[in-house]
Amino acid sequence: MPRYRLTLEYDGRPFVGWQRQAQGASVQQMIEEALAVLERGRPVQIQGAGRTDAGVHATGQVAHVDLDKSWRPDKLREAINANMRPWPVAVIEAAEVPETFEARFSAIRRRYVYRILNRRAPPTLARDQVWHVARPLDVAAMHAAVQRLLGRHDFTTFRAAECQAASPVRTLERLDVIAHGETIDIHAAARSFLHHQVRSLVGSLEHVGSGKWSADDLEDALHARDRRRCGMVCPPDGLFLVGVDYE
Amino acid sequence: MPRYRLTLEYDGRPFVGWQRQAQGASVQQMIEEALAVLERGRPVQIQGAGRTDAGVHATGQVAHVDLDKSWRPDKLREAINANMRPWPVAVIEAAEVPETFEARFSAIRRRYVYRILNRRAPPTLARDQVWHVARPLDVAAMHAAVQRLLGRHDFTTFRAAECQAASPVRTLERLDVIAHGETIDIHAAARSFLHHQVRSLVGSLEHVGSGKWSADDLEDALHARDRRRCGMVCPPDGLFLVGVDYE
Repeated sequence: MPRYRLTLEYDGRPFVGWQRQAQGASVQQMIEEALAVLERGRPVQIQGAGRTDAGVHATGQVAHVDLDKSWRPDKLREAINANMRPWPVAVIEAAEVPETFEARFSAIRRRYVYRILNRRAPPTLARDQVWHVARPLDVAAMHAAVQRLLGRHDFTTFRAAECQAASPVRTLERLDVIAHGETIDIHAAARSFLHHQVRSLVGSLEHVGSGKWSADDLEDALHARDRRRCGMVCPPDGLFLVGVDYE
Repeated sequence: MPRYRLTLEYDGRPFVGWQRQAQGASVQQMIEEALAVLERGRPVQIQGAGRTDAGVHATGQVAHVDLDKSWRPDKLREAINANMRPWPVAVIEAAEVPETFEARFSAIRRRYVYRILNRRAPPTLARDQVWHVARPLDVAAMHAAVQRLLGRHDFTTFRAAECQAASPVRTLERLDVIAHGETIDIHAAARSFLHHQVRSLVGSLEHVGSGKWSADDLEDALHARDRRRCGMVCPPDGLFLVGVDYE
């Protein structure tokens, strides 16, 4: 069975998240159902690199799938996309890969961007694709403070209660806060993240930007290893899985 | 009665367009209804700089309004925005202006951007905010060809049959075709535009990008002054009124 890597883009708004749930439409389900059509009704299972939550978007999610039939990669991309209409999910690229490739386990880095719209007026065109923060944020203070979280730490403070990872230790490789006009993008990269880690970090970072917390407060919260010390978990709307890297 | 200039952003998708219609929600109506609440039920009329069509977006539409009550501009912006929820329309800026200011008639330049998503995969996150063109377009050829339409011309070819302007002569000040990754933005600026002029130009320009038309064909179509020589009128989805300039 040939194995294919699929690079995926989706608008998370209408979905219960990446993973199949008992109720509601998931991104995984839409892709698996489109693939099942190509496989003449055989149930198909895919594996994704990141299990994005409900409302979280992707411009560079990666999944792999084994198919009975051999496909020219561009034809496979077209055939899947044709079968996913009108859901806002698209295969951007398909490629044949060795059977040792695992979208989830071969990944060496996940990259996320969290987008804040920082202005008084509510979002219109970007609605559901930003977190609207009306009070002015100090971007330089946010960027300086978040550098203290780089590297290997116990991120218990910034982890969802329901997180199922065996260890709360993660190594953050990149944390940059960059403003473009009214938009503030927080770039985060790591081999893997804990459940709600980016949204917990950004929610706490907003406290730094608004002056409620100092950089020391952020660092103290990390060292406390106590979920109650986390700032708010910010909404999924602004979160994008932008890429997954492999060796 | 103090006069205010409102700078507006909206997602055109749910609207029948800027202007009030017998049926359906218009952008003008949403703003006027929000203003009427502030004026204790008195009907309020606003004048916009550009009458955008159904599905056309704005990041920099301008309107003016006369109010009984005097407002601090930032308080006015907040009050209007609070009364427009949940419609995707927002006042980005409010300013008090002299009563000689007319949003429509004082304008010396309108600026539009038309956005094409040029890739095989359909749009997901940008759906309704781009025109999806799957065949590869030659951006350099499009940019070079469209320079021939700069300046003062009779644009009968690129004008809707129902256009109500007295003259088909317009002076185009800027036409630039700029690619950023898979996105192609066509920037257009003029004192004023004919009805469907940008969408007619872009639809014809797509023929140049795909190799169906040469630059000479585009210029010949202009000189023919014949609506039947226009390429397709492209969809409203990709069109944004990005700014209006005043002396």
